[in-house]
Amino acid sequence: MSDRTDYIREGAEIYRRSFAIIRSEADLGRFTPEEEIVAVRIIHACGMVEAAPDIAFASGAATAARAALRAGAPILCDARMVANGVTRARLPANNEVICTLDDPRTPGLAAQLGNTRSAAAMELWRERMGGAVIAIGNAPTSLFRLLEMLDEGAPMPAAVIGMPVGFVGAAESKDALAADGRAPWIIVRGRKGGSAMAAAAVNALAGDPE
Amino acid sequence: MSDRTDYIREGAEIYRRSFAIIRSEADLGRFTPEEEIVAVRIIHACGMVEAAPDIAFASGAATAARAALRAGAPILCDARMVANGVTRARLPANNEVICTLDDPRTPGLAAQLGNTRSAAAMELWRERMGGAVIAIGNAPTSLFRLLEMLDEGAPMPAAVIGMPVGFVGAAESKDALAADGRAPWIIVRGRKGGSAMAAAAVNALAGDPE
Repeated sequence: MSDRTDYIREGAEIYRRSFAIIRSEADLGRFTPEEEIVAVRIIHACGMVEAAPDIAFASGAATAARAALRAGAPILCDARMVANGVTRARLPANNEVICTLDDPRTPGLAAQLGNTRSAAAMELWRERMGGAVIAIGNAPTSLFRLLEMLDEGAPMPAAVIGMPVGFVGAAESKDALAADGRAPWIIVRGRKGGSAMAAAAVNALAGDPE
Repeated sequence: MSDRTDYIREGAEIYRRSFAIIRSEADLGRFTPEEEIVAVRIIHACGMVEAAPDIAFASGAATAARAALRAGAPILCDARMVANGVTRARLPANNEVICTLDDPRTPGLAAQLGNTRSAAAMELWRERMGGAVIAIGNAPTSLFRLLEMLDEGAPMPAAVIGMPVGFVGAAESKDALAADGRAPWIIVRGRKGGSAMAAAAVNALAGDPE
């Protein structure tokens, strides 16, 4: 029964030990110091050091995202769970965290575009995209649609955190973002991903190093 | 470029194909039909068929949770991200979804208890615990604290979805819940877990089978 009564109850100590375990177990040598902090938080969010090989950064993307957040860039999220996972107290410039999925205009836009609500919701971001940090943690269709919007001349974001999860289009959408290369990208390759990983990446980029 | 333009844009079709892929790849034979639906949604939430062996149910827990939700049980969540992941339209009885983490009394309770905010927030649920469905997707301390509260005579929930994630206490807290055995439990063993998986389990238990 010692497990039940001896557990660590102090939040900061839990974080400290968690990060130490991750750094002792995961192979993080290929990351720059700025990327490593992001990778550690992504691993922390999913509980899997085995995710490390799938975490990838366009050269300079972590630096660009961090600078954009410091300069006050908004954070545009595809899902409420991503927006809720962003720790407001870490944000360096009281940055806006925006999710338009539940906007009353979104269902109509989805029908009009013939796409998911997640993809359609991004139309309501379009004018905010220039210099923004985009965090996609749920819908592959959002990431595909983002590339289409750039094709259509939408303003260029400062960085795209592309971490949709799942079995249909997730891996392909992240490969497409990286291959496209116009926007600085941070991704978790393959089927793995999700709101918690995307929010963790934002939190790592937003705050002072741990 | 076909990946970028040919992607599937219809939400229901994405779900249908995703579930078909999961059922073709994951070994789900040990689950009852009612458990299998929950396992499929948990796997869907994390993008990993390799999580299947870690998904475990106390005998009858899926049935108990489903019946409780149909009867109007509240859903008590340790994290906002869990609460946000519950699809309100699937709930069979307009069930309340409660997260007390941000209650203004929580920080004071945490200091008083010498525990995390996540664990302390549960004091504010205590009177709602009888017959409730508890969904823990973030904090191992919440799951440990839940067992302490049962020791103290807190009312028995209908079922506990125990899916905290991470490197310090997550695996141990889930093992402790299963070993304790007083409350019907649904867990993902080991470090893996998270808000998305916990919310997916609630959604599977709440709705009609797909």
